[in-house]
Amino acid sequence: MSLLLKNAVLNNINTDVLISEGIISQIKQNIDESADKIINADNKILIPSFKNGHTHSGMTILRGYADDMKLGPWLEEKIWPAEAKFTPKAVYWGTRLAALEMIKSGTTFCNDMYFNFEMSQKAYIDAGIKSASGPALFDFFDQKKAEEMKANCNIAIENTNISKNNSLSLAAHSIYTLSRESLEWIANLANSKNIPVHIHLAETEREVEDCITRHGIRPTELLKETGLLDTDLIAAHTIWLTDYEIDLLDEYNVTVVHNPVSNMKISTGGVFPFKKFKDRNIKMMLGTDSCASNNNLDMFEDMKIAALLHKFHNNDPEIMKAEEIFDISTGNEASVFPQLSSKIEVGTHADVLLLNPNTPELVPSHNLISNIVYSANGSCVDTVICNGEILMENRITKDEEEILENVRFLSKNLFY
Amino acid sequence: MSLLLKNAVLNNINTDVLISEGIISQIKQNIDESADKIINADNKILIPSFKNGHTHSGMTILRGYADDMKLGPWLEEKIWPAEAKFTPKAVYWGTRLAALEMIKSGTTFCNDMYFNFEMSQKAYIDAGIKSASGPALFDFFDQKKAEEMKANCNIAIENTNISKNNSLSLAAHSIYTLSRESLEWIANLANSKNIPVHIHLAETEREVEDCITRHGIRPTELLKETGLLDTDLIAAHTIWLTDYEIDLLDEYNVTVVHNPVSNMKISTGGVFPFKKFKDRNIKMMLGTDSCASNNNLDMFEDMKIAALLHKFHNNDPEIMKAEEIFDISTGNEASVFPQLSSKIEVGTHADVLLLNPNTPELVPSHNLISNIVYSANGSCVDTVICNGEILMENRITKDEEEILENVRFLSKNLFY
Repeated sequence: MSLLLKNAVLNNINTDVLISEGIISQIKQNIDESADKIINADNKILIPSFKNGHTHSGMTILRGYADDMKLGPWLEEKIWPAEAKFTPKAVYWGTRLAALEMIKSGTTFCNDMYFNFEMSQKAYIDAGIKSASGPALFDFFDQKKAEEMKANCNIAIENTNISKNNSLSLAAHSIYTLSRESLEWIANLANSKNIPVHIHLAETEREVEDCITRHGIRPTELLKETGLLDTDLIAAHTIWLTDYEIDLLDEYNVTVVHNPVSNMKISTGGVFPFKKFKDRNIKMMLGTDSCASNNNLDMFEDMKIAALLHKFHNNDPEIMKAEEIFDISTGNEASVFPQLSSKIEVGTHADVLLLNPNTPELVPSHNLISNIVYSANGSCVDTVICNGEILMENRITKDEEEILENVRFLSKNLFY
Repeated sequence: MSLLLKNAVLNNINTDVLISEGIISQIKQNIDESADKIINADNKILIPSFKNGHTHSGMTILRGYADDMKLGPWLEEKIWPAEAKFTPKAVYWGTRLAALEMIKSGTTFCNDMYFNFEMSQKAYIDAGIKSASGPALFDFFDQKKAEEMKANCNIAIENTNISKNNSLSLAAHSIYTLSRESLEWIANLANSKNIPVHIHLAETEREVEDCITRHGIRPTELLKETGLLDTDLIAAHTIWLTDYEIDLLDEYNVTVVHNPVSNMKISTGGVFPFKKFKDRNIKMMLGTDSCASNNNLDMFEDMKIAALLHKFHNNDPEIMKAEEIFDISTGNEASVFPQLSSKIEVGTHADVLLLNPNTPELVPSHNLISNIVYSANGSCVDTVICNGEILMENRITKDEEEILENVRFLSKNLFY
């Protein structure tokens, strides 16, 4: 499969781009090779696609189900009882809706954590986007649950068709839902099978306090002791950290994922220590978290809110410049996900977007990246290409009506 | 002129709506009267339009011109030198672009402050949206400038065609750009001519410090002493206030305008004291401020960011619920602008939107207002009706290409 983009605008220069078997093979003016499909880009703006570092896609079906509540009652009275009613179908169609939103707002990859991950993975594959996901792992410090979890995890890994585009990541929920022994088991499994691990880390102050009470050490130290820092680790939230813990994340090459909207909406205090991560050159990704706590998956919006949050929190408009959060959000070459590229160059994965330059929010164009971060939203994305395949063209994407219909039906029938 | 909306969804119920001469005249199922124009709303969601309490629309032409800078150098090195190059045409087309963005994101009114306001007002009238704007008033404590300002202001008021939809507000810039005598002059003029006054108030801590140094009292006290609190006053930002000043704003029935994105982006510290305003039932509006400090005019985005900011700042997810910020943003019946209605009822102004229910961000619909505030963006607006006139239908609006072309041309030729 080859795809030729004619007359796109890359870094302010008009150019053609040839994509062959998912890889960018030529970037130059007037490419006159033939291709299976030609898109007349017609001055549309070519940029890398967004990569979402932390999602719970199945929860998209709970968008707007409960908001403006304190964390405890929100989870205990609303979210967990609703999740108890989830069927595999709900996870599948919730994830299809998530993938639809991602495609329509220019995201071609997510690192997901949810139960029934086989359904999520099927949804990503059906939608055509890249993903990392895997069995959701928690034992609530119960020996019997831990054994079940391990058995199910082994079966899941055995039975999962792993592709380059839709790979596994072990969804180790958190240190407050997993016993020390299970954390060690996960670390061993991840290292022996070479699978990345995805965990919530230091999201709330209570997590730290409980960890110290239970284990006598802080969360990141527990990850070190249990071997999880030795794995390809992606840690979401990473707010309540000491400088020593940040040094550990640096030393062990952990990828941290910032979820500004979810953190502000749930508002349990604290802020992702962006400057400290940046000073140490720690790999960062941007994440939306779930639609229950965001409530959408538009990375444009999360980029802007991230930049605003850090400026506000530090009383400093120079912190987190548009270019910085754009680079973080489009990929950052996180080596744990080899299916991603953040640059548009010959030899990189063809996960790219065409933006409509006639969107009012992109006019005038004193600074394209500023317009993308501070002014645009997902609706300025015209065309989405993932792995060289066209997932959206002129904002038309497949199965949209069917997805919305199924989610409407399920949400009415499951929760009321 | 009459307009009939068939089969819209209002408060979850399908209904028809008849609009006559800009006023909603009937709301019921199966209206079978004739009308000059009929829209088959086809299950689209009917909500009140947004009203933007504080803009500098001409500055839309500076979107992305300078970001991520400290306030001083941002103004002195970038914004003011650029503004010095503005022509009346730049103000006109910048404001047309602002109005285009507002229409495309569901806003039908703005309270504007900018020089060459005659150009802005013409742009609003040409675009078809409602506005309040007026001569920009500042003297920089210079007697000669003050006299010029007064003369120009009198001429402007004399020569301006005031309509119900596009009314005057005196753009008294701030207490740090106007002498005490000029503030008094403006207050007298406003009261004698019955014109509202629009002012920046307590945006930065420095404004307060300088006021105390110069006048020995705090900004709101100066507004009281100069008579401005006796006018129909709209005060933008209102961050650095004592409880006594907040009580004054309450006593004098001042309308305060929250500009969360601009405040966070410029990040001079402090937060709009939402809870204190709410406890006193002070009238609030939401504002985007200018595209130089936002950088768009999408009220959906500003509603979400407002709610996130207050939750984060107070460590309390229950503060500023979706319904609260939605009510603030759609109108709040601020009596200083009689051309506005915030409710969809028989007898109210027909400034309403139809949202596309098939936008993924609005699915599922557990809670419409939550979806609007936390998930949607301006692109979910399908149809915009202002004063009973259709400004956008199926996202098509007039003059779009011409506006973008003119702004592109002017921004290239003025600033480089």
